[in-house]
Amino acid sequence: MMTVEQLQEKTERARAVLPALLDEKNRRCALDLIGQALLLNKEEILSANERDLEGAKRQGVPSAMCDRLLLTDERLLSIAEAVKQVALLPDPLGVEKSYTLENGLLIQKHRVPLGVIAMIYEARPNVTVDATALTLKSGNAVILKGGKEAFFTNTALVKVMRSALSALHLEDAVYLVEDTDRAVVDVLLAMRGQIDLVIPRGGKGLIRHVVDHAKVPVIETGAGNCHLYVHEKADLQKALKVLINAKVSRPSVCNAAETLICDKAVAPVFLKMADEALSALNVELRADEQALLLMPHADPSTEEDFATEYNDYILAVKTVSGIEEAVAHIAKYGTRHSEAILTEDDAAAEYFMARVDAAAVYRNASTRFTDGGVFGMGAEIGISTQKLHARGPFALEALTTWKYKIYGEGQVR
Amino acid sequence: MMTVEQLQEKTERARAVLPALLDEKNRRCALDLIGQALLLNKEEILSANERDLEGAKRQGVPSAMCDRLLLTDERLLSIAEAVKQVALLPDPLGVEKSYTLENGLLIQKHRVPLGVIAMIYEARPNVTVDATALTLKSGNAVILKGGKEAFFTNTALVKVMRSALSALHLEDAVYLVEDTDRAVVDVLLAMRGQIDLVIPRGGKGLIRHVVDHAKVPVIETGAGNCHLYVHEKADLQKALKVLINAKVSRPSVCNAAETLICDKAVAPVFLKMADEALSALNVELRADEQALLLMPHADPSTEEDFATEYNDYILAVKTVSGIEEAVAHIAKYGTRHSEAILTEDDAAAEYFMARVDAAAVYRNASTRFTDGGVFGMGAEIGISTQKLHARGPFALEALTTWKYKIYGEGQVR
Repeated sequence: MMTVEQLQEKTERARAVLPALLDEKNRRCALDLIGQALLLNKEEILSANERDLEGAKRQGVPSAMCDRLLLTDERLLSIAEAVKQVALLPDPLGVEKSYTLENGLLIQKHRVPLGVIAMIYEARPNVTVDATALTLKSGNAVILKGGKEAFFTNTALVKVMRSALSALHLEDAVYLVEDTDRAVVDVLLAMRGQIDLVIPRGGKGLIRHVVDHAKVPVIETGAGNCHLYVHEKADLQKALKVLINAKVSRPSVCNAAETLICDKAVAPVFLKMADEALSALNVELRADEQALLLMPHADPSTEEDFATEYNDYILAVKTVSGIEEAVAHIAKYGTRHSEAILTEDDAAAEYFMARVDAAAVYRNASTRFTDGGVFGMGAEIGISTQKLHARGPFALEALTTWKYKIYGEGQVR
Repeated sequence: MMTVEQLQEKTERARAVLPALLDEKNRRCALDLIGQALLLNKEEILSANERDLEGAKRQGVPSAMCDRLLLTDERLLSIAEAVKQVALLPDPLGVEKSYTLENGLLIQKHRVPLGVIAMIYEARPNVTVDATALTLKSGNAVILKGGKEAFFTNTALVKVMRSALSALHLEDAVYLVEDTDRAVVDVLLAMRGQIDLVIPRGGKGLIRHVVDHAKVPVIETGAGNCHLYVHEKADLQKALKVLINAKVSRPSVCNAAETLICDKAVAPVFLKMADEALSALNVELRADEQALLLMPHADPSTEEDFATEYNDYILAVKTVSGIEEAVAHIAKYGTRHSEAILTEDDAAAEYFMARVDAAAVYRNASTRFTDGGVFGMGAEIGISTQKLHARGPFALEALTTWKYKIYGEGQVR
């Protein structure tokens, strides 16, 4: 395994590049060069990716995961295109506010980079490039720790990017931890004062581990046990359409719905509709006692079902006698990601949206909309389920902090 | 000691009050009632304070600490006055941004309270009231854990405030952990999901302990090992005036200077001036080898001196051969609070202010200005030395987060 000293040395080298990254021209140029280099070195990258895929298949990695690992001509093109898009976003750095005190002191509040950011992620190699583009765009350096399945791909991608950056003497701004041992994660998590932020992206296990062990600041991402509450005053056709979208349009993502909460007043009608429609779409239903009676295709749910983010064609169903019970259920089991109410009643909608503690609360719309691109951020690093610094979809601004620059002529207090 | 269950029950009661605190009228009324009640119950509060002071004197608590503990008619009046000032600040909650997507979805970004905030602090009883006013103003509930020296005072203050709040049925929004055992702190720090933020205020030991042990989010405050760098192009008269102010105007606070860094080019003149002026003001000087030769009143410094926040009439002195060495010294020993350069050279000032990583960087002004009131925030909860969520002086906004409310008519993705 890499020694702590080796990681520290790489981190120090990354930090040494930060002053040069304050220059917007350097950052713009860096992203342009990376975008071009990815396409110019297509063969090298794709053949490294083939090597990873062969290894993954030999080790019996599931085909869904192999697909996430796979790069094609088209996918590489779209990765390079995303770098170009990030380059075109407004500069997140610079003077945010400037004012002069009565004593003549000029105070400037500057948006500045956080510093050295570590990304810890799993199979998808596009994260290697996306994360690099977003961290460089915001003036930060990045330490990448990808999954072992993508080792050769990530190594090739980072080699190509570093070589592109070397024309600007900025190669040390991007560093891949080649050690695929998970223990190296714990070393990164302990580098307080050397790493300014860790962003974990991946499964629940990884995120939990990072949050529990980090001595460095973390932005927690992605856990989404999202609920859809069908209120007694819901338009049931509308509710069904939203439910189907929230569950089956892409079950593997964090903004998909995992539990349907149905008001008892509309359960006899709505649960029958949901049972028919969802079972026809191959969604497995796990229903509480009351719902079970109304849903012929459902199996009984357990306590654990309500706490589970399936990321799959499975839906838990809970019946409640009113909005308070729905809100209480979400408070108990929700992960503060995205929650929806289906209702035509304004007061009920406002009650729900004020009381449910989540990054995004919806009235009569699918939870699937929680996304940086949809919200107009131009990009997304992840979806934060914490309340401090970043909440919900976050992008460039969350990779910055601020600094007060104060100009005087000898003022004293 | 209080059981975990007892603390959890209090925290749940506090959380139950949160919906009522969303109403701005309730919050305004709450602060008005608290301000009035403090004055109406003056005798009760002051006599409780006397009891604390007697206890402190019996136990030989140093007189500086006794003074921080002391309440007088005048001090209580100014505490009540501060509550009134907080009440008059603009509401930190509400819609921050509102936009409609092409598909008709209305997205509103709302500033919302964090939830239940725990304040862990030491002797000063004014924190009990200040923290309550600021957390309530921003719609949060507060769990207070004060120091044992102020036990009777804090108990009286919280009793008076809760009784005032009971007229609005909001008494559970403020709770004092009566247990003065330090172990109760660790219970609070582990209440992930129940406490939304912990703010430690006090000595380095307390803050370090909180940061190291917290499983809940923390805003780290107050450690200030601040430097003043006298560049070779400094106006030395100006520099001396700023140095004296930064060191002796109030040595006990976190924005006071602890180390003078002097460029060798001006050391023969400036260190002699500083030696005379500061020794006449009873400042103890701890100088490195080169400085020692120029400062007849100084003692030799050790490595530890440069890492120490004295909070006292002591100044460490370091000589450097140029700005790079000054910046490196600050990177090594600084606490990212406030750092100053004294120079008439624009390029040197910009170099220093861009490269020094701190919440506030000064050119030709005293570090003592780092303060929420001075910066125009109308109040201050503390000075954050971390980069995420809050940096530098922070007030109401840092006690909020945001929530996206999304209104649709059945939109799906």
